[in-house]
Amino acid sequence: MNYTLLCDFYELTMGNGYFLAGQERRITYFDLYFRKVPDGGGFAIAAGLEQVVTYIENLRFTAEDIAFLRGKGGFAPEFLDYLTRFRFTGDIYAVPEGTPIFPNEPVLTVRAPAIEAQLIETFLLLTLNHQSLIATKANRIVRAAQGRTVTEFGSRRAQGADAALNGARAAYIAGCGGTACTLAEMRYGVPASGTMAHSWIQMFDSEYEAFAVYCRTYPENAVLLVDTYNALKSGVPNAIRAFRTVLDPLGHRPRGIRLDSGDITYLSVAARQMLDEAGYPDCKIVASNALDEYLIRDLILQGARVDLFGVGERLITAKSNPVFGGVYKLAAVEDEAGRLTPKIKISDNVSKITTPHFKKVYRLYDRQTGQAEADYICLHNETVDDARPLELFDPDFVWKRKTLTNFTARELLTPVFLRGEAVYRPPALNDIRAYCQAEIATLWPAVTRFENPHNYYVDLSPALWTVKQELLQAQSAGSGY
Amino acid sequence: MNYTLLCDFYELTMGNGYFLAGQERRITYFDLYFRKVPDGGGFAIAAGLEQVVTYIENLRFTAEDIAFLRGKGGFAPEFLDYLTRFRFTGDIYAVPEGTPIFPNEPVLTVRAPAIEAQLIETFLLLTLNHQSLIATKANRIVRAAQGRTVTEFGSRRAQGADAALNGARAAYIAGCGGTACTLAEMRYGVPASGTMAHSWIQMFDSEYEAFAVYCRTYPENAVLLVDTYNALKSGVPNAIRAFRTVLDPLGHRPRGIRLDSGDITYLSVAARQMLDEAGYPDCKIVASNALDEYLIRDLILQGARVDLFGVGERLITAKSNPVFGGVYKLAAVEDEAGRLTPKIKISDNVSKITTPHFKKVYRLYDRQTGQAEADYICLHNETVDDARPLELFDPDFVWKRKTLTNFTARELLTPVFLRGEAVYRPPALNDIRAYCQAEIATLWPAVTRFENPHNYYVDLSPALWTVKQELLQAQSAGSGY
Repeated sequence: MNYTLLCDFYELTMGNGYFLAGQERRITYFDLYFRKVPDGGGFAIAAGLEQVVTYIENLRFTAEDIAFLRGKGGFAPEFLDYLTRFRFTGDIYAVPEGTPIFPNEPVLTVRAPAIEAQLIETFLLLTLNHQSLIATKANRIVRAAQGRTVTEFGSRRAQGADAALNGARAAYIAGCGGTACTLAEMRYGVPASGTMAHSWIQMFDSEYEAFAVYCRTYPENAVLLVDTYNALKSGVPNAIRAFRTVLDPLGHRPRGIRLDSGDITYLSVAARQMLDEAGYPDCKIVASNALDEYLIRDLILQGARVDLFGVGERLITAKSNPVFGGVYKLAAVEDEAGRLTPKIKISDNVSKITTPHFKKVYRLYDRQTGQAEADYICLHNETVDDARPLELFDPDFVWKRKTLTNFTARELLTPVFLRGEAVYRPPALNDIRAYCQAEIATLWPAVTRFENPHNYYVDLSPALWTVKQELLQAQSAGSGY
Repeated sequence: MNYTLLCDFYELTMGNGYFLAGQERRITYFDLYFRKVPDGGGFAIAAGLEQVVTYIENLRFTAEDIAFLRGKGGFAPEFLDYLTRFRFTGDIYAVPEGTPIFPNEPVLTVRAPAIEAQLIETFLLLTLNHQSLIATKANRIVRAAQGRTVTEFGSRRAQGADAALNGARAAYIAGCGGTACTLAEMRYGVPASGTMAHSWIQMFDSEYEAFAVYCRTYPENAVLLVDTYNALKSGVPNAIRAFRTVLDPLGHRPRGIRLDSGDITYLSVAARQMLDEAGYPDCKIVASNALDEYLIRDLILQGARVDLFGVGERLITAKSNPVFGGVYKLAAVEDEAGRLTPKIKISDNVSKITTPHFKKVYRLYDRQTGQAEADYICLHNETVDDARPLELFDPDFVWKRKTLTNFTARELLTPVFLRGEAVYRPPALNDIRAYCQAEIATLWPAVTRFENPHNYYVDLSPALWTVKQELLQAQSAGSGY
């Protein structure tokens, strides 16, 4: 699938304009970052970089694309000619997938000629916005389940095919145990599983017969959906009868039952008792039905006996907050001599002011505990020496200061493309997932809690802070604020 | 793109089970419908059928798919062999795209062998759920704008590439004037447009220079973004200067200015006055910035002078209610002799009880006014004769009755596939859009209002009502309710 034209049309009108103004080779720096963690959380999780790499590698205008643009009109013939040879020739730096990320720090930085950097804006944003949104939401749900498995069940309610497929991928990175989406296993290796719908039960003359046929077909993997008629009066007794009649003689243990409606706490406690008394204490109870992190937390608090949660629409659409507001902003331009001019975008809304210049991001960990203490953004040519103390200050309230000693500094932005060549080979999905879990473990509980989390520190180096202040003052004076 | 494996894994485990139980050719009837209009609205809009047709036509298991399933294990070799020859051989009936639809009436009905009907569940649901969701939301926004153009701007915040592309399509069906997404025009003919980002302004030494270069490049289509520094003190005056200096000598009129931040009411009123006084009363004002139907309604009430709204994340994700809860439920099975057995799914939650049997849906319009009075669901072999009076009754409160005379009855479910052959050629997108607008005009204002809309009548024929009651009583007696 070639997504080159999955761009906002203004990227092409600007491209044509840069080309005709002789600006098309001018090197620009753009930062992709977000301003606010969804659901009032304390951190987000970066995801989607692998799909960005594939997109950039396939970026080219086909003859059909050019014909379409020519037909649409408004583009200079020499610009269209340039597009036929278009390739991405720039550099991209990004935080690895699975990294916890915080507002207002670059998650990805592009250094490229203006046309190129501008053209990729939409696809980069939609890919990283979407997968980071789902990873962030899924991780909240996984943490609420306190070690119980969470499976992603939401394809049918996803916002399109990509949302189903890449949403399953993002959910797995963030800790889900698997998905119901078959293609997500084939494409990405996310373990897919599933057993039966209510229609299976309805296809047979009785619920018992439906269960018995299923147990004969899948004696090693029988998870029976027990709420088609009446879970406690019909479903669980019929399941136990099928286990007894079909599985016991074959020497197989039942895998589970699934509750998909009703009062999950009440039903799971009663079903647990019935299964235990029948001699199936190892038979798991799966629950699904419009769950999210709050309902799962409540179910557990109420003593529900659920071993595995299937979570659908509220995960795959991040229903409570379905937008990840990543933005893509110009940070600097470069002249022919390679000199950088930092750029800022000011706004009446102070939270929308950008941080200018080509930057690095360090994460600073306590050397003793391994806990992440702060992120530190500095100019691209600064280096943090973690053998020496580092003074941090709040960029808004600069009298708030703190000196870190005995810490390690890790650079977060990794080269992904250099001069148009992919230099980053995406890790295996299971490695991304393990890295994500390990990195979340470095966050203080105050940062990971659901309600009123502590604001993790994202600080600026004195040099970067000074650049930003100078630009703010210059712009403000010039624009009449 | 082959989406055959974009299915829930249980569709394959059930398929294998049906196959091994000799049930794979058993004819089943499934209804796709929804239970609740998003955002508390009075109606939804059906969209996505064209993509369903494409999906069904391309439905086949590749050698790679089969190898994947074989490797995953659990499937009988003869089932996998059957899948290599798999084609959809059934019938599909659906309401045309753009039709206003109401809860609990079939939007699509499948008659097919159990395996086939089950396998397509996920893709059908995700496609119709997604596009119907966006069409329904976009139409609310379009109606709030009271005749002003609404353009879909949300690709960057969409939940993946499909959500951007098909979301733009659905929004156009529902009345948006166009999109920012270039590929949506190339693929579907949705008019794409766009001018400049803030980065364009920042790339030049001054805002005026940026505007002047843009006006020289696009003298016939200059829409200038005026809020990069300060809209009223800098942006609008510089825009007027560029219009005066570049466009006037060329004999071109300016197209517009765009406000993307700040107090849109205040800024648009002031900008309107400045443009009028400068002799550009025909220069349009475009507004964007986290808009939705409520904000647009408020802006208009407050007297904002906005001619065109660009709407992004709140439209493309249907942010306030991002799930369209379509479901897919077994309604009947057929024996070898062609006899139908209706099926019902009961639930503790009364709203989740299904309506059994193979059905037709009529929309009944007043012959005098053309207004839609009610929908009427009956058995597949019943016919409404609109030359005779028709008594309607509320299916829950059966003493509520009403007799329609002087009406026309239109069948909503149209054949889309018959014996596996596509018999429905999707209309041109502009025809779908015009049909949608015309059909919404047949709804009473009480049904279309945003707050506490009137419940449009969706009634059952006496014969269908009786089938449902009999099944409810039989099931209830059998399951111990």
